[in-house]
Amino acid sequence: MDKLVECIPNFSEGRRPEIIRTIADAITSVESAVILDIHSDRDHNRSVITFICDKQQAVEAAYQAYKVAERHIDLNQHEGVHPRIGAVDVCPFVPLNKTTMSEAVELSEALGQRVADELHIPVYLYEQAARTTERKNLANIRRGQFEELRDSVKYDTSKTPDFGHNKLHPTAGATAIGARMPLIAFNVFLNTNDKSIGRKIAGAVSGSKGGYRYVKALAFEIKSCSQIQVSMNLTDYRQTPIYRVFETIKSEASRYGVEVVSSEIVGLAPTAALLDSGAFYLRLKQDVRDVLLEERLKLVGLGEVTISTR
Amino acid sequence: MDKLVECIPNFSEGRRPEIIRTIADAITSVESAVILDIHSDRDHNRSVITFICDKQQAVEAAYQAYKVAERHIDLNQHEGVHPRIGAVDVCPFVPLNKTTMSEAVELSEALGQRVADELHIPVYLYEQAARTTERKNLANIRRGQFEELRDSVKYDTSKTPDFGHNKLHPTAGATAIGARMPLIAFNVFLNTNDKSIGRKIAGAVSGSKGGYRYVKALAFEIKSCSQIQVSMNLTDYRQTPIYRVFETIKSEASRYGVEVVSSEIVGLAPTAALLDSGAFYLRLKQDVRDVLLEERLKLVGLGEVTISTR
Repeated sequence: MDKLVECIPNFSEGRRPEIIRTIADAITSVESAVILDIHSDRDHNRSVITFICDKQQAVEAAYQAYKVAERHIDLNQHEGVHPRIGAVDVCPFVPLNKTTMSEAVELSEALGQRVADELHIPVYLYEQAARTTERKNLANIRRGQFEELRDSVKYDTSKTPDFGHNKLHPTAGATAIGARMPLIAFNVFLNTNDKSIGRKIAGAVSGSKGGYRYVKALAFEIKSCSQIQVSMNLTDYRQTPIYRVFETIKSEASRYGVEVVSSEIVGLAPTAALLDSGAFYLRLKQDVRDVLLEERLKLVGLGEVTISTR
Repeated sequence: MDKLVECIPNFSEGRRPEIIRTIADAITSVESAVILDIHSDRDHNRSVITFICDKQQAVEAAYQAYKVAERHIDLNQHEGVHPRIGAVDVCPFVPLNKTTMSEAVELSEALGQRVADELHIPVYLYEQAARTTERKNLANIRRGQFEELRDSVKYDTSKTPDFGHNKLHPTAGATAIGARMPLIAFNVFLNTNDKSIGRKIAGAVSGSKGGYRYVKALAFEIKSCSQIQVSMNLTDYRQTPIYRVFETIKSEASRYGVEVVSSEIVGLAPTAALLDSGAFYLRLKQDVRDVLLEERLKLVGLGEVTISTR
């Protein structure tokens, strides 16, 4: 399995676990596909499935997910705070091991062609797979969401999909397919329901608005707990680390008399990102990688040693 | 290598790297011994070697270290801020994998017998290997250090060693050998050189003085940087986590107008201890173990997948 990819489709369904289960089963019906994580959010009404797969079978596994989603998710009935254009809102491929980014782009194109041809869902290619600078940024593709795109795609040539026709699928809408480097999806919750405060704070950390270069942020109102959620993608945690963004949000929030209640990671994150946060707050003199017992055991070929604790 | 132990001898030498190198070579002359970490501290004038070894050869590997230390380290010439009673001040065994604590105790006894018989260094058994409640606590054994013990061992029957005679080795002094669970050696540095503040803060977190149950703490003056070091053993990081102790030190320090400058881990620490700190400070809703990409890959048998980053 030298040629592996990670695939992280986002579905506009977070309240019917049985549908997500059916989609997951469709993915794993493909031999080499292994699901790493399923994250469903009721408020977003959205689920993120993280799976990895042999490069040769990745398009098939993702296509199977589209097929089930197309049958069961109706955007006309969908409500949730997260912007979306389709039943499978977005489907990125991330190269692993020896897979290259251009191979991940090829997978996006192959999947895009098939989704448009067989399921009649128009496809926009984004990030590394984008064919225009405009479409590198997913936010541009998603602007206006399903409800507006349904009309504008018919007459606005800037909305013409990369695959498929100028007409959304009646229930499954459209979809964005792309290739990108790994990112961390990180949400921070504030003890306010004032959306204007949320928007200001999201703006303060967003690279596009003068914030941190590798942060994309939106603010959502989470009615179930009367909190504002700053929902982020950290696209390079080495250059813009989690703790720095978190501290800036804390500081900006306190300016409005608001406090950070909690945070969450959507899907999975590299262990190093969390270790770096531990080391930052503990003001550790050393490189945290140099003090980890398990890492040292691995280095000397003893990765399987278990350390008993009380 | 089902029956493994970890051994963490502490040597009263932190300024002559060539001596520590010679000791390390003596340890690894034993086939199954693998050194995981060497931590030398000039101010403590002390080095900690962490090695793991097949249970059958652990006594031999540790004994080789004692032999070199006995030849090269003279306690009469030794100065450093950390309390010590001998060239090898302390030598704990920690059971790994299928090794039991009682087997680790047997190793302490076998090593103690040999060090006393062949090198004429009196041996005190401590922690799980201790033969009296008093000696469970290393601090009791070390009280008065080399200089006082040299005299008191001759007439004070409470100082009679568990192996060897009532007479310290003229240069190598005495030694404490024991068996224990893993611990984290954690030092916090304060921007003051006022030892009385250091002592108060060390007292505030020490289990023996009303602080946290699984913390042992001392305060040292680090002249090289005019700082006070709170030097700790965290004997159960699950029950008394690093971040809680660190935050208490910060809070107590601020009461004296003093700040925490930095911290360090001596030797190695379980990765979980640092991840827990990251999750605490980021106020993560989830169990941090559930969001780690590498852990999830390991769970599905794909531990060797590499994730490229920019």
